[in-house]
Amino acid sequence: MSGPSSGALDRRVRALGELAADAGLDAVVATKDASIAYLTGFSGMQLERLMAVVVRAGGGATLIVPELDRVGAANAPTSAEVVTYTAASNGLPELVAALRGARRVGIEEDALPHGRALALIDAGAQLVPGAATVMALRVAKDADEVAAIRHACAVVTEVMEEAFATLRPGAIEHEVNALVEYRLRARGATATHPLILFGAHAAQPHGEPDGRALQVGDVVCADVSAQIGGYWGDLTRCGSVGEPDAWTSEAWRVVRDAYDAAIGAAQVGALARDVDAAQRAVITSAPHLGDCVHGAGHALGIDIHEPPFLVPSSAEALRAGTVLTIEPGIYRTGQGGIRLEDDVLVSPDGPVLLSHLPLELRVINDERSGS
Amino acid sequence: MSGPSSGALDRRVRALGELAADAGLDAVVATKDASIAYLTGFSGMQLERLMAVVVRAGGGATLIVPELDRVGAANAPTSAEVVTYTAASNGLPELVAALRGARRVGIEEDALPHGRALALIDAGAQLVPGAATVMALRVAKDADEVAAIRHACAVVTEVMEEAFATLRPGAIEHEVNALVEYRLRARGATATHPLILFGAHAAQPHGEPDGRALQVGDVVCADVSAQIGGYWGDLTRCGSVGEPDAWTSEAWRVVRDAYDAAIGAAQVGALARDVDAAQRAVITSAPHLGDCVHGAGHALGIDIHEPPFLVPSSAEALRAGTVLTIEPGIYRTGQGGIRLEDDVLVSPDGPVLLSHLPLELRVINDERSGS
Repeated sequence: MSGPSSGALDRRVRALGELAADAGLDAVVATKDASIAYLTGFSGMQLERLMAVVVRAGGGATLIVPELDRVGAANAPTSAEVVTYTAASNGLPELVAALRGARRVGIEEDALPHGRALALIDAGAQLVPGAATVMALRVAKDADEVAAIRHACAVVTEVMEEAFATLRPGAIEHEVNALVEYRLRARGATATHPLILFGAHAAQPHGEPDGRALQVGDVVCADVSAQIGGYWGDLTRCGSVGEPDAWTSEAWRVVRDAYDAAIGAAQVGALARDVDAAQRAVITSAPHLGDCVHGAGHALGIDIHEPPFLVPSSAEALRAGTVLTIEPGIYRTGQGGIRLEDDVLVSPDGPVLLSHLPLELRVINDERSGS
Repeated sequence: MSGPSSGALDRRVRALGELAADAGLDAVVATKDASIAYLTGFSGMQLERLMAVVVRAGGGATLIVPELDRVGAANAPTSAEVVTYTAASNGLPELVAALRGARRVGIEEDALPHGRALALIDAGAQLVPGAATVMALRVAKDADEVAAIRHACAVVTEVMEEAFATLRPGAIEHEVNALVEYRLRARGATATHPLILFGAHAAQPHGEPDGRALQVGDVVCADVSAQIGGYWGDLTRCGSVGEPDAWTSEAWRVVRDAYDAAIGAAQVGALARDVDAAQRAVITSAPHLGDCVHGAGHALGIDIHEPPFLVPSSAEALRAGTVLTIEPGIYRTGQGGIRLEDDVLVSPDGPVLLSHLPLELRVINDERSGS
């Protein structure tokens, strides 16, 4: 994955400038790490130091980074102007200068801290929510982006297969996650998020892996994600140590049905909430097995979580080129959790799976390894 | 590290309520993951789903999390009320309800997204910058917190020693970082950030590890950090493959002098910018060796980067109990970078090192490993 070309970046900047003009804005300020990478090819680590791309409706863009990142920014494939600021500045004066007098300024209101927004207002800008304007561009992936997500999914698939093939009773939860992370990194992942939880711990979709050991009879819920070549892949599969018990088998079957329903609903023009409703109807039809505690999934790309979010409150219509995670789950406190997740391209020809990992419930060898 | 007790958390909440009252606020809303963990013992992963702790000046606190985190929040040692919201909500109505009519509301303006701030304003809140109020509490670490940072430093120290002992020419940069990350995770790290860069790549303080191989003559700049038991340790050491060349030796000596100067300046009552000035004077006295492209360091604790930031623009006075990274560096494009970093407790008895890793420039065996 070689990353976007200078020409592709120019086209993105030009398109955002046009969207800004259409929205009556003089400029858009993108401040999410992922938006900055999308517009300039520069992948930074923002922490407390401001980074931004100013895209002017009249044409042209400026990338603003701390001096610390001067080499990385200079090497980025962007043809945008690059401005660096020293540790004596907080970057805001440089950002205001790059606005070149723009009055109506679109910001990423779901990420820009309120304090920085107030500083821009003090400097004379009239701020307008612009997150949707930036995402209108980012949400529709081009062929290179889809290929990058497919590649990330392929790497996650390999590592997931290795993980299930080697899991045995007695394995320590946080060590299993550490090894999966290592295997993803060794294959070139620049960010990872393995979340492999055992038994009752799997009832917490965002549990923190700990020192517990895998037991015979445990369910295993393995959510493995990695960013490679700038894009994420994010898959979840489940297993059982030894033959699954009744709860595991039934819960898996329900989640599998919910997965099919949600993928079927992931059509161009469908509303985000309709995809959620498709899985929710199935999960909530089996309250004796557990609860539906999250939405059907979310878009992914340079960020692991991007809008649209597939939740009951989102009336956003799905656009062709959007890549979604579809990840229904069912969770019962004290028992465990089952989730199935794949990454799906929304296309005029219907939903397209970007990964090829069998969905089946894995039966993990229940004999302790000999070591 | 067992984490804070319920009693310790109650004291933190009470203290923040009192600080809020002193500042004329009716409530403070903490939304940083680290502030939430500090006040409740709940370590969440926020992504797009709002999490918050409302601390009311009149007493009492409410933790607001998505339903997805209901089990983790219920298990947290906090005695704060816990409110969960379903995927049909964005959490804001629940946050507004927890304000119980508070008018003047302190927010963490350096983290709360502008869009959420506007929603609170629409709901009738008068927002006041409150980040400094929350940090006034978090910045002064108690004995348990200092012990946790010492432990994290000890783990980083072990892994750093292993890394230098095993580095050989031909090692691949991203693989070395992946292995260090694995070793940190295997020792219980819940977050890690190894940044070990070779040769000219080390001229970028935030370069992304890539596929380059370690060469004889390369400088190695190894910045290794990990969060364990909720707290970070963050250390940097440098090495040379084979005997160091003149630039490496001289740059290392200058950075060592800057390190001594900055640690000496890290006194109770000193201004953050004075600690920076101490290192900056030394680094900039040797412009033939490279540039000073970042501040002297930053506070650390539950977050890897916390205020105060040791930069020329910060007139914040250092308080006893603050733990700072001291990490001067010098960088020359095309050549490399040298940085030395330790974690230091600011105390009435002067600066106290929390780690015990020799500073020396490591000489890495320049024979390729036999494997």
